[in-house]
Amino acid sequence: MGDVADLGSLATPSLILDETIMLRNIERLERRLAALKVSARPHLKTVKSVDAARHVLRNARGATVSTLREAEVFAEAGVTDILYCVGIAPQKLPRVLALRAAGCDLVVILDSLAQAHAVAEVSRKAGEAIPALIEIDCDGHRSGVRPDDPVVVEIARILVDGGAELRGVVDHAGESYGTHGEASLVAFAEQERDAVVAAVAQLAEAGFACPVVSVGATPTAHFARDLSGVTEVRAGVYVFFDLVQAGVGVCGLKDIALSVLTTVIGHQTERGWIMIDAGWMALSRDRGTASQKIDQGYGVVCDIDGQVLDSLIVTATSQEHGVIGVRPGSGAPLPDISVGTMLRILPNHACATAAQFDGYQVVTAAGGLDYWPRFRGW
Amino acid sequence: MGDVADLGSLATPSLILDETIMLRNIERLERRLAALKVSARPHLKTVKSVDAARHVLRNARGATVSTLREAEVFAEAGVTDILYCVGIAPQKLPRVLALRAAGCDLVVILDSLAQAHAVAEVSRKAGEAIPALIEIDCDGHRSGVRPDDPVVVEIARILVDGGAELRGVVDHAGESYGTHGEASLVAFAEQERDAVVAAVAQLAEAGFACPVVSVGATPTAHFARDLSGVTEVRAGVYVFFDLVQAGVGVCGLKDIALSVLTTVIGHQTERGWIMIDAGWMALSRDRGTASQKIDQGYGVVCDIDGQVLDSLIVTATSQEHGVIGVRPGSGAPLPDISVGTMLRILPNHACATAAQFDGYQVVTAAGGLDYWPRFRGW
Repeated sequence: MGDVADLGSLATPSLILDETIMLRNIERLERRLAALKVSARPHLKTVKSVDAARHVLRNARGATVSTLREAEVFAEAGVTDILYCVGIAPQKLPRVLALRAAGCDLVVILDSLAQAHAVAEVSRKAGEAIPALIEIDCDGHRSGVRPDDPVVVEIARILVDGGAELRGVVDHAGESYGTHGEASLVAFAEQERDAVVAAVAQLAEAGFACPVVSVGATPTAHFARDLSGVTEVRAGVYVFFDLVQAGVGVCGLKDIALSVLTTVIGHQTERGWIMIDAGWMALSRDRGTASQKIDQGYGVVCDIDGQVLDSLIVTATSQEHGVIGVRPGSGAPLPDISVGTMLRILPNHACATAAQFDGYQVVTAAGGLDYWPRFRGW
Repeated sequence: MGDVADLGSLATPSLILDETIMLRNIERLERRLAALKVSARPHLKTVKSVDAARHVLRNARGATVSTLREAEVFAEAGVTDILYCVGIAPQKLPRVLALRAAGCDLVVILDSLAQAHAVAEVSRKAGEAIPALIEIDCDGHRSGVRPDDPVVVEIARILVDGGAELRGVVDHAGESYGTHGEASLVAFAEQERDAVVAAVAQLAEAGFACPVVSVGATPTAHFARDLSGVTEVRAGVYVFFDLVQAGVGVCGLKDIALSVLTTVIGHQTERGWIMIDAGWMALSRDRGTASQKIDQGYGVVCDIDGQVLDSLIVTATSQEHGVIGVRPGSGAPLPDISVGTMLRILPNHACATAAQFDGYQVVTAAGGLDYWPRFRGW
């Protein structure tokens, strides 16, 4: 498990992962889903790490991924039940077949007749019925067909008659990221459940069964009160949490497991700026809190031990420079933080910030320091 | 040089680099700087590729980098004259010494007494005079001291008396990215030159020489009319150009060498959306044109051959989904582009988009296809 954690010895910027917080976040969702009597299918697009996935998947039915590269890496690491949860492009089907041939039960999603024809044709030619979920649109956020659209049954028919497999339905309440507070999140969770349940009913009436009924987004996963009719829940960012999720009301700052370690490299005292060596290359360009009630800039500043310095945020970035300033309206004075001081920045969006790094410097639950590599690409 | 370029055979998303356009961009700046009788010190933070750097540096005095990792990779590849152009943190000085010991003339920059003391102390202890440029602030954009601030001479004195080397001065008109048009860009270039020339005069009066007087930003490098007193010009994004630079007025869309190859994966016809498999993970979260006269969303859409489809931009992204829509106000109809069609997206910010990929799929000047790996990290 490595040495005792001495973050001061690390090069900056580095990506710090607090394993204790991560494990607490994982347990929290596990408890919720167990109480709701539904399986978990965690989304590994956030962690992109085999080491982290071992914790995330320990009580899960299977995994969700956002790229075929993720599917390939996690299949190689022994994950045998994977949902590739981005609408399938016909050109990607040979890689889907290769993964299935290697023993991974990889499932695709689709929302059009064109995709259904492509999946059916490739299945027929390969003699391998590729399983597919029909993507249902519950909130106008992104992809999917409306649950009552007759095209749902048309897609099912093309799949089944054409030699593919209809595995079920899937949706994602992406609009829930744009809201705040319990009442609204509970409503989004109900809307997400209602949409797939309605699609299942339409399909049942036409004679098609849906063994898998998959819903999920981190906010709805934490606020659903009833998941009758749902077989599995997907969520990803809950493993680390971030400022956007705190702004939505799903977690507090103390639940954010991820931060960027940085060093003070200068001051522009007249302008109220402390310059750091974490720019957008380290923090990412994500400004997800810009549209929330509290705009956290490019991140909230903590000391090297992770204690939040609440009046300070990263107000601007260039590629390798960050500017720390006092939060607008706080009225707090700019503290005197000397060149060479190390700080930590909580990210707006864990998926985006983590993706800027090749790996995690893990402060382990045992108090040591470990390194977990990440991967990327498609 | 690989096969004949068949982009249709590539997995998506992929990062496409048009070598012909890149070479034209490099030649353009080389011609300008030759006419101004000043050396080039290209910034390699944009390309982060040894293969690309061979072209970029062919007529340059040396290189500029934004991380010590870049310095280490390019030094290993044979670049012996490198400016690390982010204010030095004391903790990084051992790596600076190691690079210098390996034969690379690595130069650091600084703008504070604290940094000057640290560089002097490490130089003295190592018996190696680390060369430093004093960073001058010409436009209030980021770091640096004002050219007439007496601290300029104090820093010089600490360096020289302490055992380090004063190599000269450096500035960067970062605010020029926020303007538009020739008159303003010419003025920014003059302001950038004036600031370092004034700092050199202050230092000369105190008895300090400045062998290196370094200015630069892509906009000012292309619009400077007189660089008397300047010894070298830095620029980085000019190698690829991007939509931000087009918005500033430094290039046209036809000069953008970089694009993201993507595949259509669905439609939301009622909402006027075409869904693609390039989300922010591929395009980056950079929205640099949002504050310009023409907001290009997350990028301008081209067909697979690179022909601009002017009415279409990427209007929204999630991690692995992009949404193409008609440019607001264009009044154009949404074209019928079927699932499986491949498109290319011109990026807002080449440095940010390129950083999302492990390498370039290069359409070579000879018409073939090549692959140039990129690196990242700090």
